[in-house]
Amino acid sequence: MSPYAAPLRDIRFVLDTLLEHRSLALPQYQDLSPDVIDAVLEEAGRVAGDVWAPLNQDGDRHGCRLEGGEVLTPPGFAEAYRAFVEGGWNGIGSDPEHGGQGLPEVVASAVQEMWQGANMALALCPLLTAGAVEALAQHGDEALKARYLKKLVSGEWTGTMNLTEPQAGSDLSVVRTRAVPDGAHYRLHGQKIFITWGEHDCAENIVHLVLARLPDAAEGNQGISLFLVPKRLVDAQGRLGERNDVNCVSLEHKLGIHGSPTCMLGFGERDGAIGYLVGEPGRGLAHMFTMMNAARHKVGIQGIGVAERAYQQALAYARERVQGRVPKSRGGGSATLIEHYDVRRMLLSMRARLEALRALALLSASEMDIARHAESTEARERAQQRVDLYTPIVKAFSTDQAVDIASLAVQVHGGMGYIEETGVAQHLRDARIAPIYEGTNGIQALDLVTRKLQRDRGAALNSVLDEVAACAASLADDPELAAWGRVLRDGVDDTRRALEVVLERAADAEKGHDALQALATPMLDLVGHVLCAWQMGRAALRARAALQDGHEDTAFYRAKLASAEFVLCHWLPRGRAQLAAIEAAPALFDAPL
Amino acid sequence: MSPYAAPLRDIRFVLDTLLEHRSLALPQYQDLSPDVIDAVLEEAGRVAGDVWAPLNQDGDRHGCRLEGGEVLTPPGFAEAYRAFVEGGWNGIGSDPEHGGQGLPEVVASAVQEMWQGANMALALCPLLTAGAVEALAQHGDEALKARYLKKLVSGEWTGTMNLTEPQAGSDLSVVRTRAVPDGAHYRLHGQKIFITWGEHDCAENIVHLVLARLPDAAEGNQGISLFLVPKRLVDAQGRLGERNDVNCVSLEHKLGIHGSPTCMLGFGERDGAIGYLVGEPGRGLAHMFTMMNAARHKVGIQGIGVAERAYQQALAYARERVQGRVPKSRGGGSATLIEHYDVRRMLLSMRARLEALRALALLSASEMDIARHAESTEARERAQQRVDLYTPIVKAFSTDQAVDIASLAVQVHGGMGYIEETGVAQHLRDARIAPIYEGTNGIQALDLVTRKLQRDRGAALNSVLDEVAACAASLADDPELAAWGRVLRDGVDDTRRALEVVLERAADAEKGHDALQALATPMLDLVGHVLCAWQMGRAALRARAALQDGHEDTAFYRAKLASAEFVLCHWLPRGRAQLAAIEAAPALFDAPL
Repeated sequence: MSPYAAPLRDIRFVLDTLLEHRSLALPQYQDLSPDVIDAVLEEAGRVAGDVWAPLNQDGDRHGCRLEGGEVLTPPGFAEAYRAFVEGGWNGIGSDPEHGGQGLPEVVASAVQEMWQGANMALALCPLLTAGAVEALAQHGDEALKARYLKKLVSGEWTGTMNLTEPQAGSDLSVVRTRAVPDGAHYRLHGQKIFITWGEHDCAENIVHLVLARLPDAAEGNQGISLFLVPKRLVDAQGRLGERNDVNCVSLEHKLGIHGSPTCMLGFGERDGAIGYLVGEPGRGLAHMFTMMNAARHKVGIQGIGVAERAYQQALAYARERVQGRVPKSRGGGSATLIEHYDVRRMLLSMRARLEALRALALLSASEMDIARHAESTEARERAQQRVDLYTPIVKAFSTDQAVDIASLAVQVHGGMGYIEETGVAQHLRDARIAPIYEGTNGIQALDLVTRKLQRDRGAALNSVLDEVAACAASLADDPELAAWGRVLRDGVDDTRRALEVVLERAADAEKGHDALQALATPMLDLVGHVLCAWQMGRAALRARAALQDGHEDTAFYRAKLASAEFVLCHWLPRGRAQLAAIEAAPALFDAPL
Repeated sequence: MSPYAAPLRDIRFVLDTLLEHRSLALPQYQDLSPDVIDAVLEEAGRVAGDVWAPLNQDGDRHGCRLEGGEVLTPPGFAEAYRAFVEGGWNGIGSDPEHGGQGLPEVVASAVQEMWQGANMALALCPLLTAGAVEALAQHGDEALKARYLKKLVSGEWTGTMNLTEPQAGSDLSVVRTRAVPDGAHYRLHGQKIFITWGEHDCAENIVHLVLARLPDAAEGNQGISLFLVPKRLVDAQGRLGERNDVNCVSLEHKLGIHGSPTCMLGFGERDGAIGYLVGEPGRGLAHMFTMMNAARHKVGIQGIGVAERAYQQALAYARERVQGRVPKSRGGGSATLIEHYDVRRMLLSMRARLEALRALALLSASEMDIARHAESTEARERAQQRVDLYTPIVKAFSTDQAVDIASLAVQVHGGMGYIEETGVAQHLRDARIAPIYEGTNGIQALDLVTRKLQRDRGAALNSVLDEVAACAASLADDPELAAWGRVLRDGVDDTRRALEVVLERAADAEKGHDALQALATPMLDLVGHVLCAWQMGRAALRARAALQDGHEDTAFYRAKLASAEFVLCHWLPRGRAQLAAIEAAPALFDAPL
């Protein structure tokens, strides 16, 4: 069993130094101080490390069981979840009006990484609940909110997203589940698959948010509505009543996240599952996207969390495992793995990328705070543009990198990494879902090049690139960092050129869609590298300043400079190489397969 | 369960068109014709696809069990292995003097890919046997050979490599197993871990090749000798006698290759396991390297095999799964996955890389044939240099790519890819061992930069690069392929520059070893990309010629040109980006971790 320690020092660096607590400057948060946030982070780290993390490997080994319609989660999960709810952690980012603690999203995101790093399978449960809270708060009527929201915010009840059906995966327009009006509510009939935490024993009720069609609904997206279907019915006083007609039919046997029950749910196998319309009829997909964007951001953070844990385990093993010898120039004695430079390269590659991805994800979270709470419309809109641009990148780029980082953690362990008892292979198995769910990474890339680049003709990206270029110029002003400034500048130029290609291709009415699909993933990868390099460029400037100011934590800032050098000089070039793929003729993909 | 069809068409293209059957030009093979080889490939493909492949997923699900000291392999494995032995497949590459069929290594390698693609877990068994055959044939005395070799070549008995101990993984110098002289033989005492097919029920005897120390042995590598330890003793007439004192203590619970029993073996728990010295005392590691180099080549091919199967499964799923719609410009109807250009990009990326890796591995195999059988010493030596240079690249680069390709195959499946029943996740789990065993890929990279580049000051690589440059020039002569010629030429230039850096760093007596370790993996990745691009450049020239000559198989050659374009224009740039990492200061890795 590997320990997990929340990366508090690096999170603080991002919040304090890189983001300068910009969320706290919003009027909404005038009563919050950095000290309070610090205390929150520390306590979350303690619960994550002491309570959640020790259950992670056992959860993988035991998995979940379906017995007589009930799902039994792994030993300790129910208690650990209860501790989380009782600690008030579920609602830390939610509106105080609904019982939440109303902390900034940037803090909630930092804490989110800790749950995901400690126990990804268990952390999926509140991740889904948060989506249900968001959809209900934004689109539910007052009666529904009064009955369900508070318990969801507290985490006493949990939430799910019921989208996928056997024929409807990435394409939800072909959802078939039916909802028939029946007095004040509806009766739902249908089957949903891949429902994360769709049934479990950790809470007394589960609130399913379900996409379904009304009887007279149009075909396609326009015919889909959103319904709330509780596992147990709730009366007007909020008391739990009998079980609704929704049941777990089977559990999936998955590559990873064994502690997270992935259910096939049957709705209406008897007389129809009672459900309540959320928002407007026919607007179900739009309403669901409210929660999906937030969930996509969180899945990106999940990738960072699980990869951070894999990194910590590899680092600990490399420090302890004696194998081989150091070169004669360093004494020739027996060496721990970490003394070998190829192993150091692997570890630095993991750490540096994690720091960069974390900085980018928290930057995006801070833009969410501004988009919600800034006083001027202009500031809110500008921030929302940034969030829209960053979200597919945070989701897809972080999770692609997470799989690679977890795989490197296995590699550092050598043969021991392949043995399940070691526990590091679990992180690779767990991480592998993140590029798939909440919209595959291919879907994210298409979202980037169409909705986020094509639609505004690159305005949002160009405005970010102006800031990246300014960072490159600042680096160039420092003789020690000038070379890094040049490579970052080159990255900006490549991205601008790639953006031109995107817009040219998009202009082709005939072939535009195919052409954009053909370059979408390389484009997301390029932009991801450049945005991460930007964050590490900024980090390098701050680290240099801190060292010049004689800051006492020299080890931290020196390590930060090493991370920045890795990202800018070793890693960024791999992303820039995508320009060739972006420019290459998309006609290639017409070729026979 | 996914079917597997050996990629016969592409293998034939490599043997016939790219390699022009150069092995058959050797006097050794004067009686062999391309037709015979064709028949061998076809029949092997049939056995692999019809007999071995259907057991693959069940083998994963059942795994192996240890009961009362006996290891039970998955249902059907023993029968499938017997069919393989009875078909004469085990010895197809072995010397006819020992009962082998004496086919060229390039043919044996092509067939090897088929077993690995059909059932990697089962194919590991003969892979290890082949190593034992090689070590015994080269280093064993006549009595040992007479007693053991024929049955190993036929596959009636299987072989193992007993290297690793708990404290001795990548560094074998600290092996502790003891061998005490006892009359004409030795008594071995010790414990070996990670012994692939160390105990099983598929053959009546197992021949362990074991590294151990004589009582008076020096410390370190020089004190290690190689011993043959049979599971059951064999008398002078070759009859099986009683069980030797070697036992399976436990089986590892692994991420993948569940059908392959990975054993902890206890030697001499009673009165000592009877063993026989192979070769000279103190030369055990050197002798073992005889089999390790061959095994490294085969593990590279194993990566190609398992990745090919993952690709086939993804391709089949993409053709069949209906999801989303084609753009309006193409009619707007409902689409199969393969009609989406992002999916086409993934599939082409898998196929193109596989074709390139296969061509490189079979090129290396053909050099093995020349190194063994060419008439002139000069030709043999030159070919051996090539084999030495290619082996770490074939092993490490193919297996790194294999993990990525298998992971992409999961991605193509979307959510279904994460469900174990689908079977595609197994390929990722299986493939993940290949970068670890037979020398981690980090060890391969270090082997490349030290023994294969530093030692001859880049002579072998430069001579290959001359050929790559000539290929680039030929491409440049064809107006249609000129752009590809330029990028290949750039790849050559980058590699020459990287080689200069390697040699400069190696010259630093103080820091040279660390500096080489720091750039070894990026260097291997760069060279791997360039060699693969070379093969696809050659393939493109042949494909163009075939199309110009009006060859009837136009679909194949057009697809080959598409693969070449992907490798040269989309993929090679990623490898070239490693030059930046190679040139960057190795001092980075001195930074605190």
